Amino acid sequence: MFTIKNHLEVQNNHLIIGGADTTELAEKFGTPLYVTNESRIVENFSAYRRAFPDADIYYAAKANGSLAILRILARQGAGADVFSFGELYMALLAGIPHDKILFNGNSKTDFELQKATELGVRVSVDSLDELHTLSEIAQRSGKTVEIAFRVNPDVSPDTHPKISTGLRTSKFGIPAEEVVNTYREASDLPGIAPCGIHCHIGSQILDTEPFIEATEKMMDLVEQVMRTGIDLKFVDIGSGLGIPYKKGERTPQPQDLASVVLPIFNERTQALGISPKLILEPGRYIIGDTTVLLTRVNTVKKAARNFVGVDAGFNLLIRPAMYDSYHHVLVANKAASPPEGVYTVVGPICETGDVLARDRELPNVEKGDIVALLDAGAYGFSMSSQYNGRPRCAEVLVKDGIVDIIRSREDIEDLVAKQRIPARLM
Amino acid sequence: MFTIKNHLEVQNNHLIIGGADTTELAEKFGTPLYVTNESRIVENFSAYRRAFPDADIYYAAKANGSLAILRILARQGAGADVFSFGELYMALLAGIPHDKILFNGNSKTDFELQKATELGVRVSVDSLDELHTLSEIAQRSGKTVEIAFRVNPDVSPDTHPKISTGLRTSKFGIPAEEVVNTYREASDLPGIAPCGIHCHIGSQILDTEPFIEATEKMMDLVEQVMRTGIDLKFVDIGSGLGIPYKKGERTPQPQDLASVVLPIFNERTQALGISPKLILEPGRYIIGDTTVLLTRVNTVKKAARNFVGVDAGFNLLIRPAMYDSYHHVLVANKAASPPEGVYTVVGPICETGDVLARDRELPNVEKGDIVALLDAGAYGFSMSSQYNGRPRCAEVLVKDGIVDIIRSREDIEDLVAKQRIPARLM
Repeated sequence: MFTIKNHLEVQNNHLIIGGADTTELAEKFGTPLYVTNESRIVENFSAYRRAFPDADIYYAAKANGSLAILRILARQGAGADVFSFGELYMALLAGIPHDKILFNGNSKTDFELQKATELGVRVSVDSLDELHTLSEIAQRSGKTVEIAFRVNPDVSPDTHPKISTGLRTSKFGIPAEEVVNTYREASDLPGIAPCGIHCHIGSQILDTEPFIEATEKMMDLVEQVMRTGIDLKFVDIGSGLGIPYKKGERTPQPQDLASVVLPIFNERTQALGISPKLILEPGRYIIGDTTVLLTRVNTVKKAARNFVGVDAGFNLLIRPAMYDSYHHVLVANKAASPPEGVYTVVGPICETGDVLARDRELPNVEKGDIVALLDAGAYGFSMSSQYNGRPRCAEVLVKDGIVDIIRSREDIEDLVAKQRIPARLM
Repeated sequence: MFTIKNHLEVQNNHLIIGGADTTELAEKFGTPLYVTNESRIVENFSAYRRAFPDADIYYAAKANGSLAILRILARQGAGADVFSFGELYMALLAGIPHDKILFNGNSKTDFELQKATELGVRVSVDSLDELHTLSEIAQRSGKTVEIAFRVNPDVSPDTHPKISTGLRTSKFGIPAEEVVNTYREASDLPGIAPCGIHCHIGSQILDTEPFIEATEKMMDLVEQVMRTGIDLKFVDIGSGLGIPYKKGERTPQPQDLASVVLPIFNERTQALGISPKLILEPGRYIIGDTTVLLTRVNTVKKAARNFVGVDAGFNLLIRPAMYDSYHHVLVANKAASPPEGVYTVVGPICETGDVLARDRELPNVEKGDIVALLDAGAYGFSMSSQYNGRPRCAEVLVKDGIVDIIRSREDIEDLVAKQRIPARLM
């Protein structure tokens, strides 16, 4: 037994996760299959907890909102950052308390604002328009809603433009120069209690520099808002720490983030004589590396490249096709075998872009082999579809050799469960 | 009443599709909502039928595999190009005969090959590896499977690289120089009857030139394969005609395609003294412009841009986020109102890339308005997901004022229907 990456091990040439042999899991549960290691979730959460002992950690459910995963985090004391009533529903179902949830989003429906109001969940308000809608809803419900404003700090992290969310031109948040007036307006509105401030600058960020800039800008805004007489009970600086998808890649850890953020936060709050709660919203860091996607080789074709056709495609893991993302792959049943060729792993989807891994050195790949895509926990299943008429796959949770199915495989009949053919077409 | 684009009309300032007022549909069925005009499907199919009176037209189910839509096309005499057992199941359920279906795909599972064999469906074989697997499966089942080979003609259409499928470097098909030997090998294998040849060069192709090149290359291959003594009963040249997403854009029609393809096909087959069936596989052309996606405005925010936040995002229509695709938008309840501003329509998804339409001239947009995304029939619902915890929306079919629901909206509970939390986590 030896470790190949973080919690992943190799025994008898097989990839082992959470004490379970991946080739046995593939045999027992079929492929494709997402496999998540519970212990690694706890380790990752604990790293955040240790780095930020006084902060609240709100898991970003959008990264992976599976109930069992939310439950594991609830037991660790995590809160949740939710982006829809669906995510709110799942977070509550998993046992995350309503007062540790922040309802985010740039375009919430009235129904969603109504539910947040009824359930006593704080709302991160993205626009003046939303503020007024929420005030009306709160008044009608006879409630007062605690809110933050999502502010746009105009910080440009070095990540994929599609997931860089704190640029001035992005759709998110209140422009920095309008923030103070917006708080003023909010404090005069019935049903609204402005009590926090919130930003989020992006995802998969690989250095701490943009967090310094964002925290400083946020604390400037905190100071300006305070001067209007508003007492801010929390400052949510989002998150977005990248993880090392490539072997040997070095990425900042929660401790690194803390070492740049906390001095600024502590110094500025002390100078102001306030003690707001710091909130962080990690998603990918908590869940990304906990999970592998197992997929079976249907066919190997020598053409312009050595194509390995597997049974999972961008229907189940869209990151490579959508963001040109890298996922490390290995052959789970030949995990310690030396490389013998260069292969391109492709899915079964009808598009040329359905390439999971390009030109990778792998052992001799044969039909029936199990390919493992590593670090597939974040934005994997959560972005899955039934494209090309493919039922979505199962998810299992492993821990010290215990294996539990946490999502059953969809059947072919599930593809048509909501459909009907009008009688007049018969 | 006046026509604004193809089958779409405006009456009393409201967008009308298939005789139904879109604002009434949004009110009755809720938003987001896909609305498909049956008559337009029939018109588009008929255009192909007229242009290619002697060909078989196999609808590419991947573009939009809704049962009711497949049923409409079955009644028109369409066959189907399917890419999975799920699509095969749906095509058969909708009444498309098994002998008018071609099972395509670069990475089929053994289960899928088994089902195709049992059901007497022809298979487009993508690799030698697959050929041998299929031969074994056919033998075990005591059947003979009629096959084509998907060949890679190395043709480069001017479309998005992710959907250009006939390049030498793409994952699809047998390299042209290996095609003849592959047919030879197939004709010696038990359970295999090579009887067709197949290519597909891409999607959303905007001129006919690449089709000329592809057809010529295909007919060269037909000639070479014939010389080996194999009788080809069909030649499937795929399809991929683009449609005009932008107003005023000119795109080739089936008649234009026929005028370049048929002379080559007819001349070459006559010279060879053979009469194979020509097969075409249109998808987007048949279904793309038949459908609008209706989405309600949650919020309007003046920031770096005028952001219109609606209730559909790339969870329901991923083309703009994934391929930078353009969809024309209009305000369905102000369809004839003059433009008053420039707006960027964004969805509720947590990513900056969730922009449906950038910088568009629209009438004054207000909360509650209904935005219609036009030409959303192809690769719209079929690529949808539950990302960010959002249940997928309903689809309705309209025809001359008759409205039928063909897919019900998913409930919040559907998000967790397949999920469970292990008892040990309680």
